[in-house]
Amino acid sequence: MSQIDYFTEEHSVESVNRRMGEDIDPRLRQVIGSLVKHLHGFVKEVELTQAEWELAIDFLTSTGQMCDDKRQEFILLSDTLGVSMLVDAIQHRRPAGATENTVFGPFHVDGAPELPMGASISLDGKGEPCRYQGRVLDLEGHPIEGARIDVWSDNSDGFYDIQQPGQQPEWNNRGVFVTAADGYYEFIGIKPVSYPIPDDGPVGKLLESLGRHPWRPAHMHFLLTHPDYERIVTHTFVAGDTYLTSDAVFGVKDSLIVDYVPVNTGMVKWQTRFDFVMAPK
Amino acid sequence: MSQIDYFTEEHSVESVNRRMGEDIDPRLRQVIGSLVKHLHGFVKEVELTQAEWELAIDFLTSTGQMCDDKRQEFILLSDTLGVSMLVDAIQHRRPAGATENTVFGPFHVDGAPELPMGASISLDGKGEPCRYQGRVLDLEGHPIEGARIDVWSDNSDGFYDIQQPGQQPEWNNRGVFVTAADGYYEFIGIKPVSYPIPDDGPVGKLLESLGRHPWRPAHMHFLLTHPDYERIVTHTFVAGDTYLTSDAVFGVKDSLIVDYVPVNTGMVKWQTRFDFVMAPK
Repeated sequence: MSQIDYFTEEHSVESVNRRMGEDIDPRLRQVIGSLVKHLHGFVKEVELTQAEWELAIDFLTSTGQMCDDKRQEFILLSDTLGVSMLVDAIQHRRPAGATENTVFGPFHVDGAPELPMGASISLDGKGEPCRYQGRVLDLEGHPIEGARIDVWSDNSDGFYDIQQPGQQPEWNNRGVFVTAADGYYEFIGIKPVSYPIPDDGPVGKLLESLGRHPWRPAHMHFLLTHPDYERIVTHTFVAGDTYLTSDAVFGVKDSLIVDYVPVNTGMVKWQTRFDFVMAPK
Repeated sequence: MSQIDYFTEEHSVESVNRRMGEDIDPRLRQVIGSLVKHLHGFVKEVELTQAEWELAIDFLTSTGQMCDDKRQEFILLSDTLGVSMLVDAIQHRRPAGATENTVFGPFHVDGAPELPMGASISLDGKGEPCRYQGRVLDLEGHPIEGARIDVWSDNSDGFYDIQQPGQQPEWNNRGVFVTAADGYYEFIGIKPVSYPIPDDGPVGKLLESLGRHPWRPAHMHFLLTHPDYERIVTHTFVAGDTYLTSDAVFGVKDSLIVDYVPVNTGMVKWQTRFDFVMAPK
């Protein structure tokens, strides 16, 4: 195409992409060039109408305007369209045997208290106490010393502490545990419950019109870090949960589903075991 | 894939799209299905990183939050990525000889006064007066009676009246003219000037990082309607304008560039002629 050819339907992608300057960041050129190609590909494939384009503009605008310091509607949109899981999968292609990643989610808080092995993170007395235990191993099955395990879950009402400021004790269902030479960890939490992602905004309306529900299956969050090993961001999911095959944000992986076994040892009602395998950096 | 297969990088599109309900609107199924396919295709092609994903979330959020009743930053984004022109092109594939469409833009206002042929729409006394004239014809070259021609342009400072409420007379550089049996139209406006789209928001920053400028070449807007003919939304562009080959919103088409000829008839300094050809409905 010469510079004198104006925008045409046929050459729409080139029309836009050749406008980029010579000296721009090469990665930005690659990302925007690809975005324009796929965005135009979508518009052409469905022959988007003017009215649908207006709906899309309104949807994106109201999604942005739903966001504040406590609510991130665009992350919900990314999660429910599988984009968050896809980015996570691409960035964490691990060797066979290493624990798989899943979505980080919006509810992690930095600075949770480091607790002694075996301590309880359930501070509100709600829910069914559960013992979490297992080991942190390397790819050869050797225990890893000094692995930092940051855990968080909802309470038995399906809310994280930061969703109910003032109504739950500070750091309820959160804690950090550091492994000794045996790589072993143990703490008392609760058996988590399934909960809906916030669905009173544009994303909730979209899910409804798609015939989808907003629920996530019950899960415990884990963030594992160690100076010599790749960071793991994952959950373990409660086997048998109704929403395992229809997680609204597509976070479930087969390898992350664990049994919760009923026990009768004092206050503890359930027990679950999961070994984490970290890949070297 | 069976229902027991969870989200994978390889089957990411199917993972998301098979979640749609059975009884949803078929057009919505088609549009969202295609959107997910192309969105995942983009993420996979560039192997989007977590940090880039976060930048994208922040960009979309601030774009939404820039919008109010006077500013529509998502339309600017659509315009500058060529999406608005592409939707327009797909929806207005006209027979050869018919006047081509271009972007509607955000500055049209319903209800401009209907004026007698030959009247002036320039009410602020600024700019170089220009006589606009021509005919409205059908595909066979016959004049069309009763065509309604709604026109609007910026003033000589590059601003539409609604961008400067209280600073320009009401309906400055706007008017409606209706053709008689001869299909002829004539009015006095000004020779329009090139102007930048609003660039103090996220879209302006994006353009800058892409090495692109925010300018539009000088143009007069036309909206033509008639009960028996297809609506035309278009501009005429001033031949020779610096930005003809780099319109920030890709609106220029060869067939819409017109000469402005210097004249010396009283107050009028320029004259320009353009015949519109309407396709039947």
